[in-house]
Amino acid sequence: MRTRDVLALAEDAQQAGASGVLLAPVSYQKLSDEEVFGLYDVVTRELSVPLCVYDNPGTTRFEFSDELHGRIAQLPSVRSIKIPGVPAGTDEARARVDRLRSMIPAHVSIGVSGDGMAAMGLNAGCEAWYSVIAGVFPDTALAITRAAQAGDAQQAMHLSERLQPLWDLFRQTGGSLRAVATAAELKGLVDSPCLPLPLKTLEDSDRQRLAALIDELQLS
Amino acid sequence: MRTRDVLALAEDAQQAGASGVLLAPVSYQKLSDEEVFGLYDVVTRELSVPLCVYDNPGTTRFEFSDELHGRIAQLPSVRSIKIPGVPAGTDEARARVDRLRSMIPAHVSIGVSGDGMAAMGLNAGCEAWYSVIAGVFPDTALAITRAAQAGDAQQAMHLSERLQPLWDLFRQTGGSLRAVATAAELKGLVDSPCLPLPLKTLEDSDRQRLAALIDELQLS
Repeated sequence: MRTRDVLALAEDAQQAGASGVLLAPVSYQKLSDEEVFGLYDVVTRELSVPLCVYDNPGTTRFEFSDELHGRIAQLPSVRSIKIPGVPAGTDEARARVDRLRSMIPAHVSIGVSGDGMAAMGLNAGCEAWYSVIAGVFPDTALAITRAAQAGDAQQAMHLSERLQPLWDLFRQTGGSLRAVATAAELKGLVDSPCLPLPLKTLEDSDRQRLAALIDELQLS
Repeated sequence: MRTRDVLALAEDAQQAGASGVLLAPVSYQKLSDEEVFGLYDVVTRELSVPLCVYDNPGTTRFEFSDELHGRIAQLPSVRSIKIPGVPAGTDEARARVDRLRSMIPAHVSIGVSGDGMAAMGLNAGCEAWYSVIAGVFPDTALAITRAAQAGDAQQAMHLSERLQPLWDLFRQTGGSLRAVATAAELKGLVDSPCLPLPLKTLEDSDRQRLAALIDELQLS
């Protein structure tokens, strides 16, 4: 994706009324630190809504250092960083969030992604959870979030751990997108199939397993 | 990239007079085997020019199995596979090419990519080299190719090995693209800077090193 395309899409989003934009450094060619800084520098100069830096190395093949996050977070419009998850373990997760927090301005929030890591991330000090399941199962996602925000770390972890069969299904089916899109189909929220080709929603036993989990885990 | 976008681009390329197309399974979401097969199935149905399957896991995060190559190579229009390189070592390279060759029709060629691996790949039985340097240094690329095609494996390897400082520079500067684009600038073949942002051509010491190598290695 060229910088000029990103600018055009950002303008289009703003014209359509978006109140913020999310930007990952997606590129056919793996980018360097200076190229990524240049991308955010150019885009934030043009932007009149807040921007969330999307740190998603699994997709972009680009690894942000905390130092680079620190530089980018100084740019105008940057208001949040979506991190790719947190290490397993309470102390490790806290150390990871604390280190990033020490290098970015206070007005830039840190949000966790990877739904199975949300409770650990929120307990470790992330101010937001950029959730996939919340679009289809808002009550389930909100219960985890409210527990963590209330300081009940144990309850947040408990609520997350009971969803382990769902996190396992995400991993087995190539990430959360296909499963959550399938859930939207199963709940009648969208036409089926809802994903654009070449992507396909779950079929056969995976689809049946998901339908059963929605009931068993009382996802809502 | 959605299938419908790929179809639109393929149609555009054909309308513009392209005599063939190259298609890698680029996707924001990492694709499954069935999704990739579905992509090539749909695209080749619509195509009236030959297609080269671009196997480029470093960019797409998708790993083709030889079995999947075998299925896709049966589709109409498929005439070549661009493989991501060959293993180091004459026997290993030959075994890799032979295995793929045994699973695809005879009318589908195998072409090597990764310029530093071209001599090894051609010697191992690849019928083509999908080269980056050939666009700017055709004589240099042709000498390697002609030696391999004439059966002089040792000379092909010798000509490639003397370019090792160039292959090293490619690796140190994030792949061949930036260096070869810089070479095109240095030779006055294009305006400078020629790469679209956020990509940048080489600067400072990397640029000077490349300019020196063009002379020292007599690239032409």
